[in-house]
Amino acid sequence: MENKLVNTNPTIQVDSAHFEPLGTWTSDKLNASRAANPFLMTWVPGSARNNVMNVTHGEGVYLYDDKGKQYLDWTSQAVCANLGHDVPRAVIETAAQQMATLPFVYGGVGVTEIRTRMNQLMAEVLPGDLRAAVFPSSGAEANEAGIMMARRFTGRPKVISWYRSYHGATAHAGAATGDFRRWYGSDQVPGYVKAFNPFPLFFNHGGNNATEEESVQAALNMLEEQILNEGPDQIASIMMESVVGAGGCLVMPEGYMQGIRAICDEYGILMHCDEVMVGFGRTGQMFGFQNYEGVLPDIVSAAKGISGAAIPLSMTACSEEIMQFFDDKPLGWGSTYQAHPVAIAVAYENVKHLLQHNIVGRVQQMAPLFEECMQRLANDHPCIKQYRAIGMFGCLDVKDMDGRNPKLQHEAAHEAFNKYKKAYAENGLVGLHRYPHIHCAPPLIITEDELLDGFDRLDRSLTVLDEALGYYDDEHRDDNQVAAAGR
Amino acid sequence: MENKLVNTNPTIQVDSAHFEPLGTWTSDKLNASRAANPFLMTWVPGSARNNVMNVTHGEGVYLYDDKGKQYLDWTSQAVCANLGHDVPRAVIETAAQQMATLPFVYGGVGVTEIRTRMNQLMAEVLPGDLRAAVFPSSGAEANEAGIMMARRFTGRPKVISWYRSYHGATAHAGAATGDFRRWYGSDQVPGYVKAFNPFPLFFNHGGNNATEEESVQAALNMLEEQILNEGPDQIASIMMESVVGAGGCLVMPEGYMQGIRAICDEYGILMHCDEVMVGFGRTGQMFGFQNYEGVLPDIVSAAKGISGAAIPLSMTACSEEIMQFFDDKPLGWGSTYQAHPVAIAVAYENVKHLLQHNIVGRVQQMAPLFEECMQRLANDHPCIKQYRAIGMFGCLDVKDMDGRNPKLQHEAAHEAFNKYKKAYAENGLVGLHRYPHIHCAPPLIITEDELLDGFDRLDRSLTVLDEALGYYDDEHRDDNQVAAAGR
Repeated sequence: MENKLVNTNPTIQVDSAHFEPLGTWTSDKLNASRAANPFLMTWVPGSARNNVMNVTHGEGVYLYDDKGKQYLDWTSQAVCANLGHDVPRAVIETAAQQMATLPFVYGGVGVTEIRTRMNQLMAEVLPGDLRAAVFPSSGAEANEAGIMMARRFTGRPKVISWYRSYHGATAHAGAATGDFRRWYGSDQVPGYVKAFNPFPLFFNHGGNNATEEESVQAALNMLEEQILNEGPDQIASIMMESVVGAGGCLVMPEGYMQGIRAICDEYGILMHCDEVMVGFGRTGQMFGFQNYEGVLPDIVSAAKGISGAAIPLSMTACSEEIMQFFDDKPLGWGSTYQAHPVAIAVAYENVKHLLQHNIVGRVQQMAPLFEECMQRLANDHPCIKQYRAIGMFGCLDVKDMDGRNPKLQHEAAHEAFNKYKKAYAENGLVGLHRYPHIHCAPPLIITEDELLDGFDRLDRSLTVLDEALGYYDDEHRDDNQVAAAGR
Repeated sequence: MENKLVNTNPTIQVDSAHFEPLGTWTSDKLNASRAANPFLMTWVPGSARNNVMNVTHGEGVYLYDDKGKQYLDWTSQAVCANLGHDVPRAVIETAAQQMATLPFVYGGVGVTEIRTRMNQLMAEVLPGDLRAAVFPSSGAEANEAGIMMARRFTGRPKVISWYRSYHGATAHAGAATGDFRRWYGSDQVPGYVKAFNPFPLFFNHGGNNATEEESVQAALNMLEEQILNEGPDQIASIMMESVVGAGGCLVMPEGYMQGIRAICDEYGILMHCDEVMVGFGRTGQMFGFQNYEGVLPDIVSAAKGISGAAIPLSMTACSEEIMQFFDDKPLGWGSTYQAHPVAIAVAYENVKHLLQHNIVGRVQQMAPLFEECMQRLANDHPCIKQYRAIGMFGCLDVKDMDGRNPKLQHEAAHEAFNKYKKAYAENGLVGLHRYPHIHCAPPLIITEDELLDGFDRLDRSLTVLDEALGYYDDEHRDDNQVAAAGR
């Protein structure tokens, strides 16, 4: 007890170097400051703070470290810096204008021009009768708002989501998450049911010899039977990433999402598409669900691409019917910074930039070259079991010498990945690592030359991985087959 | 089913008015756009969107609507716009510089100069061995990170928090919340135990004749007995707003927080202070817990004042021991925008501004005048049962004609409050309403004249409330006593 009753109100003394301009602290000063003032990482151990790069600036698709080394951003950071590292001038200027004119209004107190414009723009960009309902700060919060919306609208408690999905780390979003990250502390939250999507690892829906159509039907049948066992009138929503992101760029097969829509309509369940990672152009459509003809969700959550990561902002959109339902009752979810004017200003200009420069069309144009490069890597590297790609989003699955399916992400990485990670950095790539998946998601503004250069850098890094996994030991050299666009 | 299988990929057509400069949409245009594109509120029914003011700009402590009417911001929006509505030039310039140089780096990929500087500045500003661990976007997320931290550090499942508290709307933060907002959808999350703080409404700890010292001891005894019944080794943390905010500016009595610290040390429970509302100067101390001599928490969460609401940012800080614990394991909480460089840049310059202009000292200077005004209102208005005030944060409790204690916040407001709310706006005040509490929390940069003017406006509004509650009907005119700084 004694040790905690200390002088808790000492005179504050701060380093005078804080008053020097940004950009003036030397590497030595920064390293000394970091050593004296440790901080935490999130999904990796805290000591990893000592290994991350010291980033000084960005330009186009590149980031630079304090030794002047250039890195091509191969995953747009966390698949969010979709315009790379040059924020359009209009974004910076509008943010500054909003900050100077009206930096903040609490959403419960007043409405601003920028929110009105953004609401209208979102209604123009979203198909059907979808409208922006609220603008939280993070994707997790957008999902929490969407879950609250579904539960209160339907009066039902359960949410169905997929294994191998990610929806955020706050407790409802975390409980809906299907990967290992929910185990840390959201898994005890009641009301979440996990289902298999059409991409299980250890079995095939409909058996190993099923056609895709049979497999899709078997997956839908399994889901419907699960719903009947859970109680259809207990289920508020089916919540899913329209294209599963961290879980490995899983694009749903023909007919599957239409089948989900039909099941939702049959049982009065809301269809909630999490567009946090792929929304705003990543897949070559404005929203990922637009890759599935005729499928209109009831609830859409988005983040990342809405601001190109230039500021924290997310969005939860819903149908007119849901919007009207809440006319006479609160949503029951809120946040101080919901509809933050400066955050919305940044997103508004960012989305206008996407439209004016037809970034989504650009992704469509680049997609064939992108896939060709993915295919080539899958063909050339024995350690690659298969790939998936859509728009400017792709994933390579690494297989070990026994040809086994990718492991789940929480399992300890083969030591070969340490060599790969080193090679990746040495070859001038920076990005997220989610073994056994290798994500490819460069900024959407990447040029053809930069894209080819990026794939070359990855190619060289994968050769290191092949070697480290033992594939170039003689007897294994020709044993490997590559399945394109498989599971 | 048919109705949902629509053309989900129509050509996007946007209003050309989006490309006109911000500030050029007329009230008519804005109103038409709002009518066509409804949005949701959070804690009030959606239709309330039609009643909120159309804010055009801010200046100093004032906001202006589209009719040119000036409103004094009486609650700093959601007790967050602590510097009012003029963001310091250095904040705007540094945000623009950061956005131009390095708008975003994912915290798991790289570390930036701005984060390093901010980490150091927070270590200099926080007492004891507290260090900034992570920088989420919202107060709710900061609390979720703090809860995760406590559970993983202690290996214990339960979190104790107070009735009449608010910690955020995401599920863990919501489950810890003690007011009605957790009922919407977080109340089923397991592992949360609610305790009474020293401000119950319907009884007094230690009996009606207890001294404050006896009352504090009785409250602590009750808490300790509750802990023993819950199982001390099941309890990760006691989580509390150092000064309860939305629940009515509850300042803990002498000895109580020291007693909590002692109980925490006795049972190996972590003390988690939620500084989201009062952190960074509101109470006349940098952090609210610094009002309680010798009390150093193990975990501190903060938001609002860290950026003065100019951008979404929050912080979770912890002791050196907790930081070290996570050296070899992940925190298990994360977000794309954790440690967002632009958000941190805004907060960094904001905190430097607080220090350079001694805003905390300014609050201390103004506090006596602030309290004097609170006291005067409590004396002059029969509808006011009592007040509480600390620094530039105060709360008046409204009592009805029967002299009853304030009701819980979720209960339907007496219709008199509608008249009061109208008078409040007509008198040129804007703010949050949380009946039966009336919060007073103007921007910390308010001048003496502005403060007196604000209290005059409130004075006139309270006269309307007195009348509406029937106090000026003859026989009641002299029946009322006011208790200063009571419960």
